[in-house]
Amino acid sequence: MTPLRIALYQGPSGVPSAIDDSLDALSAAARRAAAAGARLLLTNELYLTGYALGDANAVRDRAEPADGPAARAVARIAAEHGLAIGYGYPELDGEAVFNSVQLFGPDGGPLANYRKAHLFGDYETAAFTPGARPVVQAELDGVRLGLLICYDVEFPEAVRAHALAGTDLLLVPTALMRPYEIVPQTIVPARAWESQLYIAYVNRCGDEGDFTFAGLSCLAAPDGTVRARAGAAEDLVVADVDPGLLKASRAENTYLGDRRPELYTSLT
Amino acid sequence: MTPLRIALYQGPSGVPSAIDDSLDALSAAARRAAAAGARLLLTNELYLTGYALGDANAVRDRAEPADGPAARAVARIAAEHGLAIGYGYPELDGEAVFNSVQLFGPDGGPLANYRKAHLFGDYETAAFTPGARPVVQAELDGVRLGLLICYDVEFPEAVRAHALAGTDLLLVPTALMRPYEIVPQTIVPARAWESQLYIAYVNRCGDEGDFTFAGLSCLAAPDGTVRARAGAAEDLVVADVDPGLLKASRAENTYLGDRRPELYTSLT
Repeated sequence: MTPLRIALYQGPSGVPSAIDDSLDALSAAARRAAAAGARLLLTNELYLTGYALGDANAVRDRAEPADGPAARAVARIAAEHGLAIGYGYPELDGEAVFNSVQLFGPDGGPLANYRKAHLFGDYETAAFTPGARPVVQAELDGVRLGLLICYDVEFPEAVRAHALAGTDLLLVPTALMRPYEIVPQTIVPARAWESQLYIAYVNRCGDEGDFTFAGLSCLAAPDGTVRARAGAAEDLVVADVDPGLLKASRAENTYLGDRRPELYTSLT
Repeated sequence: MTPLRIALYQGPSGVPSAIDDSLDALSAAARRAAAAGARLLLTNELYLTGYALGDANAVRDRAEPADGPAARAVARIAAEHGLAIGYGYPELDGEAVFNSVQLFGPDGGPLANYRKAHLFGDYETAAFTPGARPVVQAELDGVRLGLLICYDVEFPEAVRAHALAGTDLLLVPTALMRPYEIVPQTIVPARAWESQLYIAYVNRCGDEGDFTFAGLSCLAAPDGTVRARAGAAEDLVVADVDPGLLKASRAENTYLGDRRPELYTSLT
C-alpha cells in the first residue's frame, strides 16, 4: 500500500481578527501541502477562531454549525487543492457549543466531526459542552483515521479505544501551553507505541492572552520514532504514514493482543 | 511527611550458578543501601535465579514457595539491615509456577506477593501461569506501595488500576531486553506522569543466553522528571520518593479526576 503523506500546519500564531484571515492562511497552507504531495492537511485546535477568545460568550459569538459558512469555505479549499483537511473550530449546535474538529475529504465532502470529550481547565469547561462520543473515524486512501483533541490524547484510555476500534492514524489538533512540553516530547510518542498507531499532533504556537503555546507538532509512529517535528514558531511539516510499517510494527509489538481486559474493570 | 529513600539494585549480570550467590549479592547491596539511608531496596525480575533459565522445566526446578528457604533468607537480610526488600523469583504454588515479586518489611515480615499478569513472549508463556490479581499493595512509612512486573507496566491499564486504587509508589522489577530502551526512557516516565505516581523500575543488565538486558533502571516521578537513572552495567542508585511533591503534582495535574470512565467501556 502507498504511504499516505500528511502535512501538519502549526500556525499562524495569535487570535485572528476575523475567520477570513484563518481561511486565507489555510488556503495558502493547502497550496503548499498539495505541492509537497500531501493528501491530508491537519491544523490545530480552534484553528478558525483562535483559542484564547476571552470567555464563554466570546466563544459562542464566533461559533458556527458544522455546515456553516466557514465550514463550507474549508470544504471549497479542500476540493480546490484535492486534499483532505482537518481543522479545529467552535461548533454551535442548538444552544450547545462544542470544541470540535471537522474533516473534509479531497472532494470537499464531509468525512467526520468530533467533539472534544476531555475539556481542560476552567476556560474550556465554562465555554464548551463536553462531547459524548469517544471514537469518531473516517477512511482516506485505505487508512482508517480517528479524531481526538488536545487533552483527550493525554488519557491513555481515549487512544486505546481508538486502537481497539482499528484506527491507523489518529489526528489530534491541540492548543498545548508551556510548560507542558512533556506531552509532545514524551506522552504522544508513548501513546503511538503502546497502542500501535500513528499520531499526528498539531499544536498552536506563540502567545494568546495569558497563554504561550508550545509548538512542537509531530507525527509519532508506532515503532517509537518521531517522523516529523515542528519548531516553536509557525511551521508546516510533511511526513508519510506507512501502512507497511504499521503492519510490521503491530506484528512485532503485540500489546493489543496481549491485553487482559478482565483485569481492567476498575477503569470503567 | 518525610521522603522515603529507596535503592534500586540493577545486578549482578548473568544467571547465578546458585541462589546463594544471589543472596550474597543481595546482602551486600542491602548493606550499602542501608548505609545510604534507604528504607527500601528493590531488585529486578527473577532476581534470585536469573531470567534465562532455558525452559519451563528448568524454571520449575528452581522455583520455591513464597515462604520457602530463599524467601526466609531474604526476610533475614531485610531484618538484619532494617529495610524493606522487594525481589523477583519463580514462585511454586502446588503445580503452578508464577513469575512473582515478594516484598518483605524492615522487620523481615511479609508485606505483599504479586504474580505477573502480562507474560511476555514464548519463553514466559511456556514457563509461567499468569497472575489473576491486578492490584497488590502494601504500606511502608505512610507510602502506599504497589507491585507490577516488567511487561505489566507497558500496559497503561495496569498502572491506571494502581493509581485508581491509591498507589503512591509502583515497584516494577523487570528483565527488559535491547532494543526496547524506549520503555525505560519514554514509557515509564509517561506512566508516572499520566497516572500521577512514582515508578521504581529496576532492570537486569548484561547477557543471558540470547538476551541482552538494557539496564537503565530508574525512578520516575509524577511531575515528569526522572529522579535517578542507572547505566547499562551493574549499578545501585538511591533516590527519594517525596509525598509532598506527589501531593502537589496531583493537585496540578488532575488526570485522575478528569477521566470520563463512561467513555472507556470498550477497554473492558
